[in-house]
Amino acid sequence: MAHMLVVGSVAFDTLHIGGKEHRRVLGGSATYASLAASHFAPVQLVGVVGRDFPDSAIQMLRSHKVDLAGLEVVDGETFHWECRYADDLSSRETIRTDLNVFASFSPKIPQSFRNAQYVMLGNIDPVLQMQVLDQIEKPKLVIADTMNLWIDIKRAELGQLLRRVDMLVVNDEEARQLSKVTNLVKAAGILQEMGPRTVIIKKGEHGAMLFDGEELFCLPALPLHDVVDPTGAGDTFAGALLGYLAGKDAQSGAALRRAVVCGSVVASYCVAGVGPSRLATVTKEDLHHRFGQFHRLVNFHGDTLD
Amino acid sequence: MAHMLVVGSVAFDTLHIGGKEHRRVLGGSATYASLAASHFAPVQLVGVVGRDFPDSAIQMLRSHKVDLAGLEVVDGETFHWECRYADDLSSRETIRTDLNVFASFSPKIPQSFRNAQYVMLGNIDPVLQMQVLDQIEKPKLVIADTMNLWIDIKRAELGQLLRRVDMLVVNDEEARQLSKVTNLVKAAGILQEMGPRTVIIKKGEHGAMLFDGEELFCLPALPLHDVVDPTGAGDTFAGALLGYLAGKDAQSGAALRRAVVCGSVVASYCVAGVGPSRLATVTKEDLHHRFGQFHRLVNFHGDTLD
Repeated sequence: MAHMLVVGSVAFDTLHIGGKEHRRVLGGSATYASLAASHFAPVQLVGVVGRDFPDSAIQMLRSHKVDLAGLEVVDGETFHWECRYADDLSSRETIRTDLNVFASFSPKIPQSFRNAQYVMLGNIDPVLQMQVLDQIEKPKLVIADTMNLWIDIKRAELGQLLRRVDMLVVNDEEARQLSKVTNLVKAAGILQEMGPRTVIIKKGEHGAMLFDGEELFCLPALPLHDVVDPTGAGDTFAGALLGYLAGKDAQSGAALRRAVVCGSVVASYCVAGVGPSRLATVTKEDLHHRFGQFHRLVNFHGDTLD
Repeated sequence: MAHMLVVGSVAFDTLHIGGKEHRRVLGGSATYASLAASHFAPVQLVGVVGRDFPDSAIQMLRSHKVDLAGLEVVDGETFHWECRYADDLSSRETIRTDLNVFASFSPKIPQSFRNAQYVMLGNIDPVLQMQVLDQIEKPKLVIADTMNLWIDIKRAELGQLLRRVDMLVVNDEEARQLSKVTNLVKAAGILQEMGPRTVIIKKGEHGAMLFDGEELFCLPALPLHDVVDPTGAGDTFAGALLGYLAGKDAQSGAALRRAVVCGSVVASYCVAGVGPSRLATVTKEDLHHRFGQFHRLVNFHGDTLD
């Protein structure tokens, strides 16, 4: 079993969902990814928070065996993001972003983390993502996330980063924006040519597509009766996916497919509570139960027509 | 092996795709469904065409062993439909509908078809769909399609029909409109309560969902580099699905899952040519090849997490 290092945001979110306002919910890509990955491998977190970050959140992360040696606590307030979801939760609108201490974040990898082998570069400025890689000795597998903002304003830097990552995880919209084509098969091919051998396209309620070299794997999302809050589902997916690979210290095609399933399994719990509330209480039994559900969901008999 | 009976439209389509106009392309739900089903079972077609319907189309259908004893030829012109696709083929707009001889269509089931066991009620007025059922002695499996028009103007009649069908095949938009809920899991449950034990929701490029009693099966669509023309893909899916079940004379849960795969396999060829041009030349080898592709597409190792 290997460790997994994750760099990203640690934040407080204010979420407007179905007419209710949830204030100061623990959030951020590194938070979701760490909690998700912690079911499969020990996690090392790198990020920054302000003096207002409560001890209860620290304790919650520690209780999931997340190593916080890389979590800087600096003067000022923690990153805060506020958004409002559409009634059917299919879209959201950012109301307010207070970068606070995140505005001057410069990731410093503690000496004890520098031999990390499985590295997740959460969605932050690609220049910072490269600074992280500069501090890691010899990673086995680097996975990167990004967003429309960086594709818009830092395309060149993102291009430099992509030549140094093994796996890119983006949603369908980002894949189209970055590749400049509509067809997702073509888009994935273009993204692979930009560097990463493996491209994973998240399609929300429509599941995920794994382009691994020439191999293609598609997994539907588990159809759910009720989705409470989609916040962090993408970070959860990527965190669990890389956590699974770190836990198994494996990168084969078969392991990647199972990693996508694990990402979907944990994401399906993430959306069942506000913020990381349900994610934080997932048990091994939950994971086993839902892995079996996914298998029944997509399984059909026989690999030939006859 | 059992026969499959299909009732629906036989038409000429004028298709505007990517700036090109394709005139008098053979079309109609019964045409696509028959051709698709013919790979799995002998097909009996019930429909109506005008005197302008060419012998070449008759011969093409006969060469696929489609029994045309139920295809009326009457004075007047064949049903004609004209539509224009958006550039990315994700939506289309009807430009013109000339019902012609279809306006007074009243399905007459030939004596030799009345013992049909697998019956597909293509997308026509639910009153006509019920007239078909009145003429069938004792079907084993009845599958029905419908559309937004009938949900709008014949909801009561559609409700009566649904109490008499085993399987409903609709797209996601129709499922939401008919059930009056947004969540597709809830929608399928409501549709099942309206009659059919089995509800299949087609999601186009996002695949299909099979709700069979309490069982749930999801299959992604095969991601394709190039889609030429989506016309008839839904009818092709349903036709191949029921054709597979008729060919195997089977209705088990396992058979239904494989039938959904067969529907997706044939539909993936349908969209590769204008009208039914590619569908009409599909070979057994094509079907085997793509069935294997679907298996690789969704297969992951192990039904447990460990």
